[in-house]
Amino acid sequence: MLLLIAEDFIKVEKISTVLPYYEELVEKTRQEPGCISYELTKDLKNEGHFIFLERWVNEDALTFHTKTEHFKRLVPLIDQHISEKAKYTRMEIIY
Amino acid sequence: MLLLIAEDFIKVEKISTVLPYYEELVEKTRQEPGCISYELTKDLKNEGHFIFLERWVNEDALTFHTKTEHFKRLVPLIDQHISEKAKYTRMEIIY
Repeated sequence: MLLLIAEDFIKVEKISTVLPYYEELVEKTRQEPGCISYELTKDLKNEGHFIFLERWVNEDALTFHTKTEHFKRLVPLIDQHISEKAKYTRMEIIY
Repeated sequence: MLLLIAEDFIKVEKISTVLPYYEELVEKTRQEPGCISYELTKDLKNEGHFIFLERWVNEDALTFHTKTEHFKRLVPLIDQHISEKAKYTRMEIIY
């Protein structure tokens, strides 16, 4: 299993614009065969900082995700409203 | 529910010293009444970067955790071997 933390930084005044894109992205991504879980969280102390907690069966499942229609359509719409570059951390569970 | 990402940065040459402390911390923390889940992951691209994914019933459960015998004994042992200050991010699930 591959874990990924994907962090987005959205301009505060654009959060309400981005939320419907996020909602659709989460709903559609959870239907992908290689997706174990896909949750979107918000940082309670840093407005506009959104953190995806993603679990994939393997690296191929994540690659598949980035080629889906919903990813290729929604991520560029979200990226129009970022305040800084997204950050990705790939992890594996040790305990 | 409260989510917390706790990030530790351990000196690479001290990882094998710290792992048994982590293992005991995970095992004992999971037995706490307010702990929903408590997983330790490692960053695949940054050796020594360890990321706890924590879910607590509420803030009180997290406060209780920091007052347990295992936390007060093990965390200082781990902290002897850090290369930089730990980082904490409190979150809530939105989707």
